[in-house]
Amino acid sequence: MDNTPLPLASTFVSVLQQVLGAPEKGFSLHEPEFAGNEWKYVKECIDTGWVSSIGKYVDEFERCLATYTEAKHAVAVVNGTAAQHIALLLMGIGPGDEVIIPSLSFVATANAVAHCGAIPHFVDSTERTLGLDPEALEKHLKQTTERAAGGLRNTLTGRRIAGIVPMHTFGHPVEITELLEVAGRFGLPVIEDAAESLGSYYQGRHTGTFGHLGILSFNGNKVITTGGGGAILTNDSELARKAKYLTTTAKRPHRWEFFHDEIAYNYRLPNLNAALGCAQLERLEDTLARKRQLTERYREVFQSAHGLHFVEEPKDCHSNYWLNAVRLIDPSMSARDILLSTANDAGFQCRPAWTLLHKLPMYASCPRAELPTAEKLEASLINIPSSAYLAELSR
Amino acid sequence: MDNTPLPLASTFVSVLQQVLGAPEKGFSLHEPEFAGNEWKYVKECIDTGWVSSIGKYVDEFERCLATYTEAKHAVAVVNGTAAQHIALLLMGIGPGDEVIIPSLSFVATANAVAHCGAIPHFVDSTERTLGLDPEALEKHLKQTTERAAGGLRNTLTGRRIAGIVPMHTFGHPVEITELLEVAGRFGLPVIEDAAESLGSYYQGRHTGTFGHLGILSFNGNKVITTGGGGAILTNDSELARKAKYLTTTAKRPHRWEFFHDEIAYNYRLPNLNAALGCAQLERLEDTLARKRQLTERYREVFQSAHGLHFVEEPKDCHSNYWLNAVRLIDPSMSARDILLSTANDAGFQCRPAWTLLHKLPMYASCPRAELPTAEKLEASLINIPSSAYLAELSR
Repeated sequence: MDNTPLPLASTFVSVLQQVLGAPEKGFSLHEPEFAGNEWKYVKECIDTGWVSSIGKYVDEFERCLATYTEAKHAVAVVNGTAAQHIALLLMGIGPGDEVIIPSLSFVATANAVAHCGAIPHFVDSTERTLGLDPEALEKHLKQTTERAAGGLRNTLTGRRIAGIVPMHTFGHPVEITELLEVAGRFGLPVIEDAAESLGSYYQGRHTGTFGHLGILSFNGNKVITTGGGGAILTNDSELARKAKYLTTTAKRPHRWEFFHDEIAYNYRLPNLNAALGCAQLERLEDTLARKRQLTERYREVFQSAHGLHFVEEPKDCHSNYWLNAVRLIDPSMSARDILLSTANDAGFQCRPAWTLLHKLPMYASCPRAELPTAEKLEASLINIPSSAYLAELSR
Repeated sequence: MDNTPLPLASTFVSVLQQVLGAPEKGFSLHEPEFAGNEWKYVKECIDTGWVSSIGKYVDEFERCLATYTEAKHAVAVVNGTAAQHIALLLMGIGPGDEVIIPSLSFVATANAVAHCGAIPHFVDSTERTLGLDPEALEKHLKQTTERAAGGLRNTLTGRRIAGIVPMHTFGHPVEITELLEVAGRFGLPVIEDAAESLGSYYQGRHTGTFGHLGILSFNGNKVITTGGGGAILTNDSELARKAKYLTTTAKRPHRWEFFHDEIAYNYRLPNLNAALGCAQLERLEDTLARKRQLTERYREVFQSAHGLHFVEEPKDCHSNYWLNAVRLIDPSMSARDILLSTANDAGFQCRPAWTLLHKLPMYASCPRAELPTAEKLEASLINIPSSAYLAELSR
């Protein structure tokens, strides 16, 4: 790799400097902010002793998440991967099934499929949203599947294709209506991976509430955090009940008896973490507003950066701009890496998109469609510092 | 069921009253206590923003756990079930294997086996320890297994038997040396379920450090709590490294790249929860000392309670007495339930042992040995209020 800083790398760093100023201690990619009732609620857990599986904050957090997203139900769990695992199980996905996911996603999207004993099946993304491409999906399903007794069959592997998991990349909503239409034509359930998109809307409706089930993540790098945490969203009361049951060891309610009637999981979110989540949610709108100010500033300044394109929210969408991103107009892994190395050296924490999932050794032999756009995006996307507090610096 | 309070039920409640006094708001089974640096450490996480996957408390908690248990390594994870799941995977347990576990255990012991795609295989417990019976185990393995190319084969099911999971019931150490000898004779690895036995020693050595791997739990009802949490203990550095890797998405270290090379898990303990754990560990000795005072008092007073036998730590063992327990000298589910109902009505939270795992519908068809002692224990064990703070009331 040629390590000479390209003019592009200088341009990149100079734009970051223009927006954020000189990094004294470095600007990290995304920092959480605890400026509200976090102390108060967490201290209350410690003072009352309710830190674990029982306590009011889990219920309260679930209520607030449902209210905010306008999902009928939210079930809080220990993290986004756990949420996705249970959501897939609830859609009947099991050993030997294939599940359609984008190759351009965090590894958890594929791992959750593997945790069900199922096999990821990769389909291409679109530049319009950075998420699953409805047209590529439809074309691929037409070419490689057939209706069979047990459902949709992959004619190449003979396995059942059992679901589709679109993911809202960096918070930008996918074309969910179109994806649901394709899924409907092929009889597939849709589990929406909204891990990154709390506060993102597609045509005015919150992401994660379109599919049969949706999931959220509250990891430390997300727009709100519970330390570690996640949630399952659904409008189906029976699925919500089942999600709660499966994530809390499937214990039948009884005054003292321990009777469990299904193989289930310990995926409950502790009350301590839910308390943090309640406080974080109270300030979410303010956090998102400041993140948007930062985005506006980036958008403006990157306009004059030749060779770089600032990634904007898709049409008809309102994005949370979880992670702001730029794209190299000429995709190149080596050019991308020079930008990453130059910016990180200069104190601006930047990262590429994830290594495409079909390139990871454990998923390399999984079935897949042609993935030209995902390849292009992998070689061009760079995430830049996106914490809400940076808005103040960028005024 | 005959609901007439037996004289035994009156005796039971009167002993509880004699030890604890009259319950004003009720005495729960086991409450956590936050009387040390809990708030200080948790507040530091919130103030610095390090609540999630990065931060000093996870490392610190792991170091302190290793020091306390004298295990060479401790790997903190999100809960005890997750710890057990990973420990089993690290022992090579996979789909179609059978794993020997006691039928008298919490459902998580069986669930973790099922999460590997493996099948629980139940063996009897002994009255001496309430845990796996080494003699019953040896006899059962002799009668029902044979050495085969892939390892030990269950001659009835044809499946491989791939490991043994002894569990230290209510904190009382099992006969781990004898179990290890039997395991050694049959070539089986031992994964020690020490979820309930932090602070319990067998012949001066901490439980969870005898087997190839051991696990701990820090759920809200345990002797220390992190809200939800667990740990894997091992003296094998390579297993410890692998445990950390598998519980943190198997990500190869890199300045920015996302490259993962195994199907792995998001089982990391958040820093916020580890902070609580660090503070809790600092006061563990004090907590255990007070719990022991309470136990002494129970032991003394139950001596005069005809028909009831107070469960004491096994020979050569030092138990944490996580949950104090009594046994009905004449086992009877209906008599047990009358005691439970009378005591709970009177404000003393009591519970039976778990429903035997082989009686739960999802494990009813799993292979099993004769289980006469487990059956007897199920119909006779009752746990009684065991929080450390009760020691003060019982003076």
